[in-house]
Amino acid sequence: MDANIRDIIFQYKDAIIDQWLVEIRKFRKEDSLQNITDTMYENTNREFADKLLSTVQNDNGEEEVLILFSERLIQLGWPLNYITRGLQEFRKITVTTLSKQEADYYKSMEFFQEIEDWIDSIVNILVNEYSGSWENTVFLQKMAL
Amino acid sequence: MDANIRDIIFQYKDAIIDQWLVEIRKFRKEDSLQNITDTMYENTNREFADKLLSTVQNDNGEEEVLILFSERLIQLGWPLNYITRGLQEFRKITVTTLSKQEADYYKSMEFFQEIEDWIDSIVNILVNEYSGSWENTVFLQKMAL
Repeated sequence: MDANIRDIIFQYKDAIIDQWLVEIRKFRKEDSLQNITDTMYENTNREFADKLLSTVQNDNGEEEVLILFSERLIQLGWPLNYITRGLQEFRKITVTTLSKQEADYYKSMEFFQEIEDWIDSIVNILVNEYSGSWENTVFLQKMAL
Repeated sequence: MDANIRDIIFQYKDAIIDQWLVEIRKFRKEDSLQNITDTMYENTNREFADKLLSTVQNDNGEEEVLILFSERLIQLGWPLNYITRGLQEFRKITVTTLSKQEADYYKSMEFFQEIEDWIDSIVNILVNEYSGSWENTVFLQKMAL
């Protein structure tokens, strides 16, 4: 990721995360996440946001960190749909927050595309992990039948 | 979707689809789609592009058309990862193609967000269908064990 974008995301990370935590709560009602405790729900969301931001800080470790975290989300029964919608929302809030800054760059196509590429690569890792886990379960169950 | 965007996507649909068919072939190598015939592969991709464009034309029928089509993709064993990457590519090509047009609107944040919302809603429908199908398979197998 471009170093300037990296810096500005970090500068505004608290505003982005706070706004995201508000928006993502709206999806909880529609999903199968109503049975977990509020504390567990808030902690996992906050951890997710931290992981997303850590991928900005460190390009190299991105994939490994996200794979480990997605394994935990799968074990917790967090639905993929909640994750993909959450990532879409994170992208929107990041773009909206930064586009309010003065520099024209944060209103440009290049900026949009940098943010999109970042979130797309995370979506791809998570979709891969969830698909792989499901396929594995289906395969193991088939063997047992 | 905004009527002007709808019109311009339709005006450039052949260029968008042709470019998309070129780009998406690159993913085939990495996926489990190498065993199907080239004709089947090309036809399904083309049908997918047509369905995407039909969602532009008709907001109301969007969800039903996509649910039916995703059921077919699941039966054919098309991986979710291929679909989500395909949709990301479709969004990029649509934005790049239209941003070359003269009107400033096609370089604006509002335009980007309209295209993103369109593709996001399609991603959500497909992720839901794939997740539901997997969960159902796992459930049925569990019952049989």
